[in-house]
Amino acid sequence: MLTLPAIPPLDLQAAAAARARQDSLTKPPGSLGRLEGLAAQLAAMTGHVQPPVARKAVIVMAGDHGVTQAGVSAYPAAVTPQMVLNFIGGGAAINVLARQAGARVIVVDVGVAADFADHPGLVKRKVAPGTSNMLSGPAMSRAQAEAALQVGLDVVAGEIAQGLDVVATGDMGIGNTTPSSAIVAALTGAPVALVTGRGTGLDDAGLARKVAAVQQALETNRPDPHDALDVLAKVGGLEIAGLAGVMLGAAAQRIPVVIDGFISGAAALVAASLAPAVTNYLIAAHRSVEIGHRVLLAHLGLEPLFDLELRLGEGTGAALAFHLVEAAARIQREMATFAEAGVSTRVEADGHVAGL
Amino acid sequence: MLTLPAIPPLDLQAAAAARARQDSLTKPPGSLGRLEGLAAQLAAMTGHVQPPVARKAVIVMAGDHGVTQAGVSAYPAAVTPQMVLNFIGGGAAINVLARQAGARVIVVDVGVAADFADHPGLVKRKVAPGTSNMLSGPAMSRAQAEAALQVGLDVVAGEIAQGLDVVATGDMGIGNTTPSSAIVAALTGAPVALVTGRGTGLDDAGLARKVAAVQQALETNRPDPHDALDVLAKVGGLEIAGLAGVMLGAAAQRIPVVIDGFISGAAALVAASLAPAVTNYLIAAHRSVEIGHRVLLAHLGLEPLFDLELRLGEGTGAALAFHLVEAAARIQREMATFAEAGVSTRVEADGHVAGL
Repeated sequence: MLTLPAIPPLDLQAAAAARARQDSLTKPPGSLGRLEGLAAQLAAMTGHVQPPVARKAVIVMAGDHGVTQAGVSAYPAAVTPQMVLNFIGGGAAINVLARQAGARVIVVDVGVAADFADHPGLVKRKVAPGTSNMLSGPAMSRAQAEAALQVGLDVVAGEIAQGLDVVATGDMGIGNTTPSSAIVAALTGAPVALVTGRGTGLDDAGLARKVAAVQQALETNRPDPHDALDVLAKVGGLEIAGLAGVMLGAAAQRIPVVIDGFISGAAALVAASLAPAVTNYLIAAHRSVEIGHRVLLAHLGLEPLFDLELRLGEGTGAALAFHLVEAAARIQREMATFAEAGVSTRVEADGHVAGL
Repeated sequence: MLTLPAIPPLDLQAAAAARARQDSLTKPPGSLGRLEGLAAQLAAMTGHVQPPVARKAVIVMAGDHGVTQAGVSAYPAAVTPQMVLNFIGGGAAINVLARQAGARVIVVDVGVAADFADHPGLVKRKVAPGTSNMLSGPAMSRAQAEAALQVGLDVVAGEIAQGLDVVATGDMGIGNTTPSSAIVAALTGAPVALVTGRGTGLDDAGLARKVAAVQQALETNRPDPHDALDVLAKVGGLEIAGLAGVMLGAAAQRIPVVIDGFISGAAALVAASLAPAVTNYLIAAHRSVEIGHRVLLAHLGLEPLFDLELRLGEGTGAALAFHLVEAAARIQREMATFAEAGVSTRVEADGHVAGL
C-alpha cells in the first residue's frame, strides 16, 4: 500500500520578502512582469528569498502502451526503447536543451517493452514491460500503478539526496498522448474530442481513430473520477504514474517542479487529485500544441510561461523554462537596489523626487 | 549626409537545408515548433545551416528627452545618467540577464544630459545632451538624427570587428516611450491613444497627459510619414536613432538582431522605413506590456517569441531571448539524426515502418 508524503504549506512570508526586495531593485516596480511573480513563487516554495537554482535535473520517465496496437500513434512502439538509447547516448533534444541549461538528465525505464543492458545512464525500475491495451481492460492493476508512482518517489528522493534545487519532468512513450487524453477527460469531465489531439503527427483518420480509442477505453474501464489511482491504473501509463510520483516527492521536500507539456500535465492532474497541495510546487513551462493541454492547465490553475508551439515531450519545454527560473532567481540575487546604485526613485505628485 | 549600407538578401538555400536537417533529427517533424522556424531564419540570415551564436552582445543606447519637462514619465530625468552608471557597475537587470546569457553589454552615451568621466565600460559618442522638447519644435535637427544613426552604425561595426554572431538592442532614456509612441503613430498611421501606454508606471492622469503630449508633438512638428529621417528627427530620440543604426549596420553584415520591446521596436520601424530589407534580420524577442508594441510588431510582420509581461527595456527581453536563439542553433548542431541514433521513423499507411 502506497503512502504519500505530506506536502508542506507555502512560505508566504518568504514570498512577501521577495516582493519587497523586488521593489527595492533598480527598475520600475513590476516591470519584470512574470519573472517577478516567478521569483516570489520560488521563494514561497523554497522558503528562501533568494532561492537556490544551481542544481537542476530533468527526470525522464519512459514506458510503453498496449493501446498502440490500435494505431493511435504515427510512430511504431519500437521507437520508445530506441529513444531511451538515444537519451543515454546524449543525442536527443532533451539532452541538448538540458546541457544548455546546465541540468543533468535522469532516464528511468519504468515500463518499456524491451530489455536494456545495464548502463550508468539508465535507472532500471521496470514495473511491467508496457501497459496492457486499455481498449479491452485496465492498462494496469492498481498495484502496478502504485509501484510506478513509488518509482517516481524513489528516483526524486535519490536525486534530492545527491543535491537538487529544481527539477523538471519529461516523458518518453510512443502512444502516451492517448492515455493522457483519457486521464484528462476522466479527471476534468471535459469531452474526449476536446482533449484529444494529433500527438506526434496523426492525420485526420488517425485522429478519429484515437478519439474513438479514448472513448472506448473510458467506456470499457469506467474509471472513478473521485479515485485518481483508479483512473491512473485503468487508463493511464507507467511513465505517467512515475512522473506523478516525482511531483509528489519533490513537493514534499519543497523542491520546485517545472512541468513539461501534455503528458507531464496529465501526471500533474493525477498528482493533484491525490494531494491537491502539490500544485503549489508546480511551474507550468509552456503551452503545448496538444489541444487538451490548455484544458488541464486551466483545471490546475496554472499559467504557462511561454508558447513556442512545442509538441515533442521528453521534458524539452521544461528544460527551456529552467532559463527563466534561473533568470528570476538571478534578478533577485544579483541586481543592485536603488540605495546601492544611488538611483532616484519616483517623482511624487508634488514634484518631489522620493529616494534621493 | 548619411550613407546607409546595403543589406544582402536572405540565403533561402541555407534555410531549406536547415529545414531538411531538422526533419532528419530524432523528433517528429515540426515538433520543436518555433525553435525550428527560428533555426531556419538564423540559417537564412547567416548563410550557415548550423548558425554560429557563441559571440553575443547587447548594445544599450542611452539618451535623454526634452519632453520629460511635460511630466510624461513617472521617473525624473536624472535617472538616465544614474542608470548608465548602474549599467557600468553591473547592477542593472540587463547586466544580470546578459551575464546569464553569456553576452557582453555595450553601453553607449549617444545623448545623455549629463557628463560622464571616462570609463572603459562606456562608449562616449554624445551627439547632444538630450533632445529638445518636441512639444515646441523638433526634438532634433536632421543632422543630429543622422549623426546618432551613424553612432549606431559605428558601434555595431566595432563590435563586429571584435567578433559578433548575434546582437541584441536595448535602451535607456527616461521619457522615451513618449517619442516612441509618436514615431509609431507617425509611421503606422495608428491613432495616438492606441499606441501610447503607461511606460514605467504612469497613473491615469499621467497617461492622459502623455497622450496629449504625443498628439501635440505630432501637430506641432507635422513629420512626413514618407520620410523616416524627418519623423526620427522631429519626434524621435537620440538613443532611438542609435538603435536604428545598430539594426541597419548589423543587417548589412548578416548579423541577426534580437530586438527588445517598445523602444527598440520604434527604432526598428524607423530602420525598416529607411531600408525595408532590415526586417529580414530582426527577431522580435517578446511582446511588451506597452500597448503600442503589438501595433508596431504587426506593422513589421514580426511575431514575438514570448510574452512575460515585461516593460523594463534596457534590452532585458532580448537578452532572455538569446537563450532561445542559442537553443535553436544547438538543436541544429547537436541533435542526432534518425540514422545516427538508429531510431525508426514513421509508420506508413500500409503499416510498413519507414527508415528501418
